[in-house]
Amino acid sequence: MSPRTPAQNAQLALLLEVAGTPKPGNVDRHRDLPGLRFEHFLAGAIGAADGLELAGTGAPVGESFERAVDGMADQRGGNTQFGALLLLVPLVRASEGEDAPTPESASRVVEQTTVEDAANFYRAFDHVDVAVGDPPEDAADLDVRRGSDAIPAFEERGLTLADVMELSAPADGVAREWTTGFERSFAVADRIEGGEGSIPDRAAGAFLEALAEEPDTLVATQHGPEVAASVSEEGAALVGAPREDVEAFADDLVARAVNPGTTADIVAAGLYVALQRGVPV
Amino acid sequence: MSPRTPAQNAQLALLLEVAGTPKPGNVDRHRDLPGLRFEHFLAGAIGAADGLELAGTGAPVGESFERAVDGMADQRGGNTQFGALLLLVPLVRASEGEDAPTPESASRVVEQTTVEDAANFYRAFDHVDVAVGDPPEDAADLDVRRGSDAIPAFEERGLTLADVMELSAPADGVAREWTTGFERSFAVADRIEGGEGSIPDRAAGAFLEALAEEPDTLVATQHGPEVAASVSEEGAALVGAPREDVEAFADDLVARAVNPGTTADIVAAGLYVALQRGVPV
Repeated sequence: MSPRTPAQNAQLALLLEVAGTPKPGNVDRHRDLPGLRFEHFLAGAIGAADGLELAGTGAPVGESFERAVDGMADQRGGNTQFGALLLLVPLVRASEGEDAPTPESASRVVEQTTVEDAANFYRAFDHVDVAVGDPPEDAADLDVRRGSDAIPAFEERGLTLADVMELSAPADGVAREWTTGFERSFAVADRIEGGEGSIPDRAAGAFLEALAEEPDTLVATQHGPEVAASVSEEGAALVGAPREDVEAFADDLVARAVNPGTTADIVAAGLYVALQRGVPV
Repeated sequence: MSPRTPAQNAQLALLLEVAGTPKPGNVDRHRDLPGLRFEHFLAGAIGAADGLELAGTGAPVGESFERAVDGMADQRGGNTQFGALLLLVPLVRASEGEDAPTPESASRVVEQTTVEDAANFYRAFDHVDVAVGDPPEDAADLDVRRGSDAIPAFEERGLTLADVMELSAPADGVAREWTTGFERSFAVADRIEGGEGSIPDRAAGAFLEALAEEPDTLVATQHGPEVAASVSEEGAALVGAPREDVEAFADDLVARAVNPGTTADIVAAGLYVALQRGVPV
């Protein structure tokens, strides 16, 4: 059999992430959200191929990411995997010439990003609506929701994509990964690699542990930091609990429209690293 | 957004097929079989990329198919989508230069196959165990289960891949599609295109109707023609029935280890045609 390329493993990571269940508050093998269904994630993972392939062949991170999001958007669910791709693209780029990315190789990719990468990152927001919070007061002109309209503002300031991520890190767990050597993504990879059972089951377990460890920043953006903190605490109480209790928590979060999507993004990134390390499906 | 390529739509068709539920007797969004799980199909669909891409760029059908199966096999479930790929590869090849394949363009692809295509088809059997019945008595030397060992036998006879399919057609519903202008695949595409509800739901409905119309040849191979006929009749009685009745039938077939996999292959092919016609996900 022919082994998968890094880009293909990144696509498979997106699929395994959404297949894992129960993944409380998120679309998973057994749950849809209103207007955001399982098949939208399947189409998003397939559509991201060209952008991921670009990253795998050494193209710049920003260009690869913008292309991946553009392809991902060819389905009717809207934003399915924007955050996951923002982690996967640099990790795929960091896999060039080695089996699996490391915190060091991933950090090098981050450090090498340019102002042009930042411009393409902003252009990606033109393709899909992404839930993000308000920017810091002194950076209103850098609001990502302005999409490509914001490009002159950070070009003037000479900000690279790494700089943009650093600005976003306090409020966004995906951006924070960029500033910490993808610390939580690699921790998820370790858990999946060392775990037992099917890969989707391991991913679901890793999701709950990650949620328990840190409040989800998408939940904080959409419902406030107090809700995010309490959901994280509820998750912590369920680590190691019977599956039916976690299922009930999952149903409850869907009913409350609480979607810990950032934690899911990090699980997708961890799955990718585990696949690159050779964990078999 | 960037539209998907034919090869990418073929991969998405494989994913949508396995996501449709209930799809009685098959792995679906809600059911696994012993040793053959949902995630094996996800990995199979991703692994098939390179072979499908070859077909999409005009490479020979046999070479593309062998490559697709080789990539598909990089998971621990064994044969996930061999039959589906045997339909998708010529349909992707037939999509070159037009939006969607037609019975005519697909038949042209079949007619143009060569002895070398047949050789590569046989080589594909080296990558994975496939459940097939005994060959006709006068063609024991052509038994596909011999894999590449059988190549000298049909090279001597000068058989093309189209000829091999014609020999297999009586006992194999996938091969029969090759000899009928992919008649049932296009009928499924029409149903999915004209249907209502989500695409996986339409695929599940089309599966039941296709099963009702014709006994499944994989079931006939594994359990005998009488079981295949009775399963088809049971399916016919459930077309239009309440979902819970179809769910019960699905659970029953899984319990009896009755797997109408050929019908699922045809649904995957129909999904591909529908996607190429522009049906949105």
